[in-house]
Amino acid sequence: MSRINAGRLMADLRALARFGACGTGVDRVSFSAPDIEARQWLVERMQSAGLQARIDRVGNVAGVTPGASRAVVIGSHTDTVPRGGWLDGAMGVIYGLEIARSRIEQGRAATLGVDVASFQDEEGTYLSCLGSRAFCADLPESELAAARTPGGETVPQAIERAGYGGAVWLRDPARHVAYLEAHIEQGPRLEAAALRLGAVTGIVGIRRFRVICKGQADHAGTTPINLRRDAARSLIGLAHWVHEAIAGLGGPDTVWNVGVMSVLPGAANVVPAEASMVVEFRDTELAVLDRVEAAFRAQIAAADGRGGVVVSAQPIARSTPTLMDPRLVAMIDGVAGALSVPSMRMVSGAGHDAMIVGRVMPAAMLFIPSIGGRSHDIVENTDEADIVLGCEALAGVVERLETVAL
Amino acid sequence: MSRINAGRLMADLRALARFGACGTGVDRVSFSAPDIEARQWLVERMQSAGLQARIDRVGNVAGVTPGASRAVVIGSHTDTVPRGGWLDGAMGVIYGLEIARSRIEQGRAATLGVDVASFQDEEGTYLSCLGSRAFCADLPESELAAARTPGGETVPQAIERAGYGGAVWLRDPARHVAYLEAHIEQGPRLEAAALRLGAVTGIVGIRRFRVICKGQADHAGTTPINLRRDAARSLIGLAHWVHEAIAGLGGPDTVWNVGVMSVLPGAANVVPAEASMVVEFRDTELAVLDRVEAAFRAQIAAADGRGGVVVSAQPIARSTPTLMDPRLVAMIDGVAGALSVPSMRMVSGAGHDAMIVGRVMPAAMLFIPSIGGRSHDIVENTDEADIVLGCEALAGVVERLETVAL
Repeated sequence: MSRINAGRLMADLRALARFGACGTGVDRVSFSAPDIEARQWLVERMQSAGLQARIDRVGNVAGVTPGASRAVVIGSHTDTVPRGGWLDGAMGVIYGLEIARSRIEQGRAATLGVDVASFQDEEGTYLSCLGSRAFCADLPESELAAARTPGGETVPQAIERAGYGGAVWLRDPARHVAYLEAHIEQGPRLEAAALRLGAVTGIVGIRRFRVICKGQADHAGTTPINLRRDAARSLIGLAHWVHEAIAGLGGPDTVWNVGVMSVLPGAANVVPAEASMVVEFRDTELAVLDRVEAAFRAQIAAADGRGGVVVSAQPIARSTPTLMDPRLVAMIDGVAGALSVPSMRMVSGAGHDAMIVGRVMPAAMLFIPSIGGRSHDIVENTDEADIVLGCEALAGVVERLETVAL
Repeated sequence: MSRINAGRLMADLRALARFGACGTGVDRVSFSAPDIEARQWLVERMQSAGLQARIDRVGNVAGVTPGASRAVVIGSHTDTVPRGGWLDGAMGVIYGLEIARSRIEQGRAATLGVDVASFQDEEGTYLSCLGSRAFCADLPESELAAARTPGGETVPQAIERAGYGGAVWLRDPARHVAYLEAHIEQGPRLEAAALRLGAVTGIVGIRRFRVICKGQADHAGTTPINLRRDAARSLIGLAHWVHEAIAGLGGPDTVWNVGVMSVLPGAANVVPAEASMVVEFRDTELAVLDRVEAAFRAQIAAADGRGGVVVSAQPIARSTPTLMDPRLVAMIDGVAGALSVPSMRMVSGAGHDAMIVGRVMPAAMLFIPSIGGRSHDIVENTDEADIVLGCEALAGVVERLETVAL
């Protein structure tokens, strides 16, 4: 016997995907017209489900189960990247709607309610995880006021344009016992391992640096190698170190990337005067991040001045890893086992609202497979059976929480 | 007693630098208005010196010593790169003018004439070494007709605009016994060694390749390292090999460069789908070039397919090294010794008209120091005493050629 209504779940997901439909995907960036319309639609769907629903001042959609003194918050986000997928974020919100609705129908709401959240701008059109930070009272007004799109619109301007008002919906420590977020994996691991559920143990912290090497432009034919101050040669040595050394310094889940490289003036016959790259590495363990960063900084320091090249590394992004609550992770394992579904524990290499909320209350994430590991693209998709299974499993976790005090 | 008139030499050099003057440098690209005017001025100066002067169909300026059955060709180019220096090319042409003029005055012209050349477009605004290739009958009409500026003007259009006509001035094997080209070094070696003259033993050949690595874009957080097809990682490994391995494979004068690098899509959090670079290496020895190229191609082949990345290397430029005539090189040594001037033998890491002419007749180049090694910039300069000394030395080589049959 199913805990949720699969047909209704899929119908709501598909209805939401019509707002900003873009081929097989969705273009519904935060505060765009389809995003504003989708939030209004979501409020109405929540009200039809029996929830007390509203849009708060920053655009968070809150659907609160009435008649419950304790509640699990289930949510994610309904904004997307430009030309994004239909499930990224949306699925976690509609899971919350469906589970809240089913529990009201089943008379379970009074025992443990479900409050449903669609957090504003997780994708960072203005400010990454804006909505969940506001919900956690972790967003200073000054930072909110300063955030703006590449086009220059500020958040206050966008709020006025959307007509949002009222108080910010805040976490209620007396009521909210846990935060659950289901999400597509956005990576290839579940598919590669032929598994259908992932219990997320933690969300990685990111350390990102811009490395700049400054040397001198010279004629690449007439200047002997030993008289050059070749900025690219320094950069290439450091990039090579990143790719060869971090594997041995990090843990099994450590990932890194050199995604941006530039060489100036950029002519075949000119020794590069300046070269730069962006290096990042991610892990769920603070100690691993610290160890990799220390080794990286030692390389930068050793390279600085070598061959007449000045080398610097500026931190440009830094986020703290967030561990999921181990009791909730164990419940996801338990539900998967009870459903006889092959699953594994895994880390999230991407940021999510659970990274913010998990710092102030017990939180967990459940992953389902992404076909081909693809996301942030209109081709993003997941088998319908996996979508339904993920919601069933999450509903199972809520049931287990009825009788457990965290 | 000097063989040349130093004051007249410097006055002509400074007069030429007024055509296209640009701060302390010159902007006189091939077929620009100042370039066309400078060629007309040069014809008049040659005629005043007693030479038979004309501009040929491709814009080469030829100044032929009358009454001589044998002649040395002395020349270089008067076109510049955009915002270039006042000596690059111009100096070698004015040396020719001054030496031809002095020899006529001194009654030496009948024994051995000097034919002065300003070759069109050495810098390759349309086609590198266009003029010297035409002089050597090494420029097919089809290639001449196809050459064009980045703006789209063809050489025939430019010729018509300039009003050039008549036959192309051709090398005369019965008359022309040798080609001499003096040039600023455009590099730091003479200055670094505190020497005033360089006898060029050869002009390097260049092999240049565009390396392209094609992988797959993935999320740099959610995709484990072992499931990536990271195009930049492959490229970085190859670039590192270039910088670390060629030193051990090449000769003492081998130089190389990675002057262009690009990574796509170029986002910090996206595993690069495509990465490319331009690699070149230069040497005067064919065997060295072949050895380095073979090792380089072996690296490309080994990298192709590794980590799911397709790697290719396309040759995009290839020039043959040109050895200078050893008897002429020895004469430059001898003249430097006779003048008690500290000198050395060296290779030219940059291309020059002597690279073209030296393939069809005995040729030599004489270098004088570049202050700070700088050129292709308006700051390019050389001490006046070195400029005068270089002309004196070249005149000395011509005197030695009076009694030598090459």
